[in-house]
Amino acid sequence: MIVIMDKRATKAQISNVVARVEQAGYQTHLSEGEERVVIGVIGNGRPLDRDQLERMSGVERTVPILRPFKLASREFHPHNTVISVNGCSVGGKQIVVIAGPCAIESRQQLLETAHAVKEAGAHILRGGAFKPRTSPYSFQGLGEQALRFLAEAHEETGLPIVTEVTEPQMVPLVTTYSNILQVGARNMQNYALLHAVGESQRPVLLKRGMMSTIEELLMAAEYILSHGNGQIMLCERGIRTFETYTRNTVDISAIPLLKQLTHLPVIVDPSHGTGKWELVDPVSRAAVAAGADGLIIEVHPHPEEALSDGAQSLKPTRFAQLIDGLRPVAEAVGRTL
Amino acid sequence: MIVIMDKRATKAQISNVVARVEQAGYQTHLSEGEERVVIGVIGNGRPLDRDQLERMSGVERTVPILRPFKLASREFHPHNTVISVNGCSVGGKQIVVIAGPCAIESRQQLLETAHAVKEAGAHILRGGAFKPRTSPYSFQGLGEQALRFLAEAHEETGLPIVTEVTEPQMVPLVTTYSNILQVGARNMQNYALLHAVGESQRPVLLKRGMMSTIEELLMAAEYILSHGNGQIMLCERGIRTFETYTRNTVDISAIPLLKQLTHLPVIVDPSHGTGKWELVDPVSRAAVAAGADGLIIEVHPHPEEALSDGAQSLKPTRFAQLIDGLRPVAEAVGRTL
Amino acid sequence: MIVIMDKRATKAQISNVVARVEQAGYQTHLSEGEERVVIGVIGNGRPLDRDQLERMSGVERTVPILRPFKLASREFHPHNTVISVNGCSVGGKQIVVIAGPCAIESRQQLLETAHAVKEAGAHILRGGAFKPRTSPYSFQGLGEQALRFLAEAHEETGLPIVTEVTEPQMVPLVTTYSNILQVGARNMQNYALLHAVGESQRPVLLKRGMMSTIEELLMAAEYILSHGNGQIMLCERGIRTFETYTRNTVDISAIPLLKQLTHLPVIVDPSHGTGKWELVDPVSRAAVAAGADGLIIEVHPHPEEALSDGAQSLKPTRFAQLIDGLRPVAEAVGRTL
Amino acid sequence: MIVIMDKRATKAQISNVVARVEQAGYQTHLSEGEERVVIGVIGNGRPLDRDQLERMSGVERTVPILRPFKLASREFHPHNTVISVNGCSVGGKQIVVIAGPCAIESRQQLLETAHAVKEAGAHILRGGAFKPRTSPYSFQGLGEQALRFLAEAHEETGLPIVTEVTEPQMVPLVTTYSNILQVGARNMQNYALLHAVGESQRPVLLKRGMMSTIEELLMAAEYILSHGNGQIMLCERGIRTFETYTRNTVDISAIPLLKQLTHLPVIVDPSHGTGKWELVDPVSRAAVAAGADGLIIEVHPHPEEALSDGAQSLKPTRFAQLIDGLRPVAEAVGRTL
Repeated sequence: MIVIMDKRATKAQISNVVARVEQAGYQTHLSEGEERVVIGVIGNGRPLDRDQLERMSGVERTVPILRPFKLASREFHPHNTVISVNGCSVGGKQIVVIAGPCAIESRQQLLETAHAVKEAGAHILRGGAFKPRTSPYSFQGLGEQALRFLAEAHEETGLPIVTEVTEPQMVPLVTTYSNILQVGARNMQNYALLHAVGESQRPVLLKRGMMSTIEELLMAAEYILSHGNGQIMLCERGIRTFETYTRNTVDISAIPLLKQLTHLPVIVDPSHGTGKWELVDPVSRAAVAAGADGLIIEVHPHPEEALSDGAQSLKPTRFAQLIDGLRPVAEAVGRTL
Repeated sequence: MIVIMDKRATKAQISNVVARVEQAGYQTHLSEGEERVVIGVIGNGRPLDRDQLERMSGVERTVPILRPFKLASREFHPHNTVISVNGCSVGGKQIVVIAGPCAIESRQQLLETAHAVKEAGAHILRGGAFKPRTSPYSFQGLGEQALRFLAEAHEETGLPIVTEVTEPQMVPLVTTYSNILQVGARNMQNYALLHAVGESQRPVLLKRGMMSTIEELLMAAEYILSHGNGQIMLCERGIRTFETYTRNTVDISAIPLLKQLTHLPVIVDPSHGTGKWELVDPVSRAAVAAGADGLIIEVHPHPEEALSDGAQSLKPTRFAQLIDGLRPVAEAVGRTL
Repeated sequence: MIVIMDKRATKAQISNVVARVEQAGYQTHLSEGEERVVIGVIGNGRPLDRDQLERMSGVERTVPILRPFKLASREFHPHNTVISVNGCSVGGKQIVVIAGPCAIESRQQLLETAHAVKEAGAHILRGGAFKPRTSPYSFQGLGEQALRFLAEAHEETGLPIVTEVTEPQMVPLVTTYSNILQVGARNMQNYALLHAVGESQRPVLLKRGMMSTIEELLMAAEYILSHGNGQIMLCERGIRTFETYTRNTVDISAIPLLKQLTHLPVIVDPSHGTGKWELVDPVSRAAVAAGADGLIIEVHPHPEEALSDGAQSLKPTRFAQLIDGLRPVAEAVGRTL
Repeated sequence: MIVIMDKRATKAQISNVVARVEQAGYQTHLSEGEERVVIGVIGNGRPLDRDQLERMSGVERTVPILRPFKLASREFHPHNTVISVNGCSVGGKQIVVIAGPCAIESRQQLLETAHAVKEAGAHILRGGAFKPRTSPYSFQGLGEQALRFLAEAHEETGLPIVTEVTEPQMVPLVTTYSNILQVGARNMQNYALLHAVGESQRPVLLKRGMMSTIEELLMAAEYILSHGNGQIMLCERGIRTFETYTRNTVDISAIPLLKQLTHLPVIVDPSHGTGKWELVDPVSRAAVAAGADGLIIEVHPHPEEALSDGAQSLKPTRFAQLIDGLRPVAEAVGRTL
């Protein structure tokens, strides 16, 4: 860390900061520039709070040198993390496709979709049992009953399961039925939930918050990693911007940037990311071309009857076409599908 | 709602949409414009899902006519809601000031601050027992111990208490010690938590998410109201934008806009909103001048030692000055302080 | 257009709005819903100003039915526009690569880069003569001298030229030396400049403003088209968001969305879009996979000596590798390179 | 400036950076931290390009120490700049109110409004002759004819004039008629125009771009100041965010922040900032309470007939009420009106 003193900082103020820093176990180095004194904080000590330092008299601001995430960083763990899910590997050479309905509406709807996506080439089945809805008047999900449908779909198709867990105390129940625990975008900083999925030691699909920076996403992963659970796949699902023609703005550069910063696999959700089914195909191709390890796509047999997010769901036939169109793109960038 | 058909929609497609809408109990009216057919949805029927309609063949888009919030809207409840908290009224003529440390670090720190803010003119004491922190390596809060300190501060000063509750199952414990339950910005769409605070029938301080629209804030309030709990004070605490000189951007127009749309009281958090202690005073005055019903301000006896958010906390003397400077502004807009 | 009246609008207010609309040559249709009266505006008349209507007593808001752009829309011109530039076609099956330095710093630097990019497979040469810089203390460009270097580079390599024109009165001079006129992101709504490039009847490379919506981009194109100049290639170059790890956020879904809405070719600038040279390659592949008609990439022989944007420029060898890696991706999506 | 080297930077790479920096006239200081080498750049030398340094092998990133604006900074010029405009002072104790129609539509409309705002208490008259419109099909302004109407209004009322100049070559003409030259939000980085208004030595009203940071606003002022023209009033007019209920988001904290960073006066445009006439009054009060030196407000005698921005214009009677309500707020914060 670097502490930049005000232009008119006094010797006493500078000494105070030096003392505080040294008291925490660091060494300091002073640079007396033309206009500012800059204090370099060197070595190892107890964690320093930037806010505390910035509050000291005479301090203009502080600048962190190191990134705040450690366990998630590639510096700590140079080799790619590959997550094994029931025979399926996420983060290896094969692009992994997760598909299914946004919300599970009935046993029949789920089984129909499960078979359809399996046949089209999907590797993992998704489906929501507990749906967080912006409006209290919208369909909230079938709950535990839906979890049992997922288990049935797994038996019939062999597809591993991922489903969202929305509260810490639901984690034990959901782990009974699901191979992967999904933490939704709105819950990316629900630290109680992150602790719970961390402790579960299960694979986690961690969605980037619509308003979260890449650094915040990696710090959320850090929470989970700090429990010794490193089986985390990060999911870019679009961020909120001023553009209104799409539901969110898919941050394509997040993919190569994350692959640079972290060893964790990176997947993309082009369905929530765009909110428009006609954009799912091109954005999926873009994601794979940019280096994504996988995709999570909404598929619904009858989107015009979907109880949630119908506008972005693909019909099974279109989903099959998407997978077919994706294969050459995957090969063009040295992956398989 | 209005359904706008594609330029090339066929008669069959139009009939389908009309049939769907009428099946849900509505009447329709067709406008055949030069370029588009527009279907007006009239009357009362079962809730229509915009996504479903937009997925039907031939539909270009839908436009909602009514706002999605009802119980929160001023149309439903024309008179201002005034929340009574232990003798203190939020939403009446008096501007209410809530003050205290961001995180409770020790019994001594809390009691010292409680007395200081009381003396300066604050009406309600705040203090965090459970701190959601971006980094797992930062101070997480003292937990239940801190709640007991809050109770002690209440006994000593008579100030009502507000503290943040971060998980649904903590609600019973927190209600034992706190008059008002605070839902943090990151939890504005934690629907499980909204249900829990709704059911508690306690006053709620609902913070706007840093990336939430005004409409989403009101829908979050709608969740709580749908439990019959209307004692909600909405809190503008800054939204995330591209500007980097401040931590967030306080949305000043949210105050008069919310007062127009809803009957619920509106308060402002200039501390988290700006992230800089020197901006808290002018932004507080601006909030009061714009019509806010109250403020929630961070005060810490020694911000340079604060374990969280020191850069935005006010020292007790500055807080006292802020209150003094606020009085003439409140009077200038017909309020009292 | 649809006019939504307030819940409590009076008959007189409704009549007024109907009269205003009919006076402009339209017919109206009234829908009397449960809670609101909605007035449909039908037919053809003089342009109606939404702001004017919204200001009339009793009006809650207006909702446009048609998109504001006409000449740019695919409805008006269903077939792809293909722009011919000195033997090179933009918008056809071939992906077009534009490359060169951000700013022309010397004759030698430009000629060296021109030969290098030509050899690597670029189709068009770029180079800035007039550089808009955020700081008045930064290099502002070599001006007309640089234009002559561009002409020389064209002679030596046969590559067509694109360069930015920053003011209306510079258009004649720049058209003497450049095949394509570039309108920079900051000038996307410089209407005087748009008129000037429109009147020039030259091919235009129109960059999306960093804070412009897709609709605003198409309206800027509409300005140019309204002069009878339809040779416009639209350029996505990243939008400004809250993310700080990248300079901008490349809006990948803009590519398929624009291809849907307009007949104009769409290219992508991954250099300014990301601001980091290591992200240029993956984002270029993503752009091609998403359906882009071309790319504009910064190449500099010695980026560490570049007088502008060095951090995002590619060295010639890396640029050559990028082109090689791009070919299979182009083929995978049915294009050539 | 500080240069942070990569974790694995070699001695040779470090030496290279040191050499480059010293070659530009600086001294360096090396801090060898646990994980990184940090190079402090000390003293005075030729301007260093951050991008260039970041492109050197082994460099992770650079961190600027000093702010990029000098002439605009309060450090350079500690006392408030007060701009004298035809007897009126902007930046002194008196709050200055600028009012008038957005676009001048007729001689009668302008004169009527001029008299009305004068009577209500405005100090300066505004009116647009050249209107930048998002759509080429909208009213573009009356041009030079409108400038003559402004001159007439000045004669009749004595009010100084401010009007927008949109192109560099229009500056001489506009200075003939107008006391203050307005640079619109979309032109904040139109450097050719900034040069032209700088050279004119006339007072300038510089609007913050809807997507510009505070730092970029001050750098735009720096352009003008670098011509020796320091008569610049900065105008906060709302920034673009994800919120859709208002046209822009007025950045209220920009006011105290700018007053801290710069000596230039700061005014606020609550009309464009909110886009809704009912929010103009409360946001105006907030601006004054936050420390603004003035306001620029749209007033139109018949907003429902306005050819631009009718929804945000105030009728003369409401404007008069706004001024009356503003006086006590101004006094409450030690200003006069």
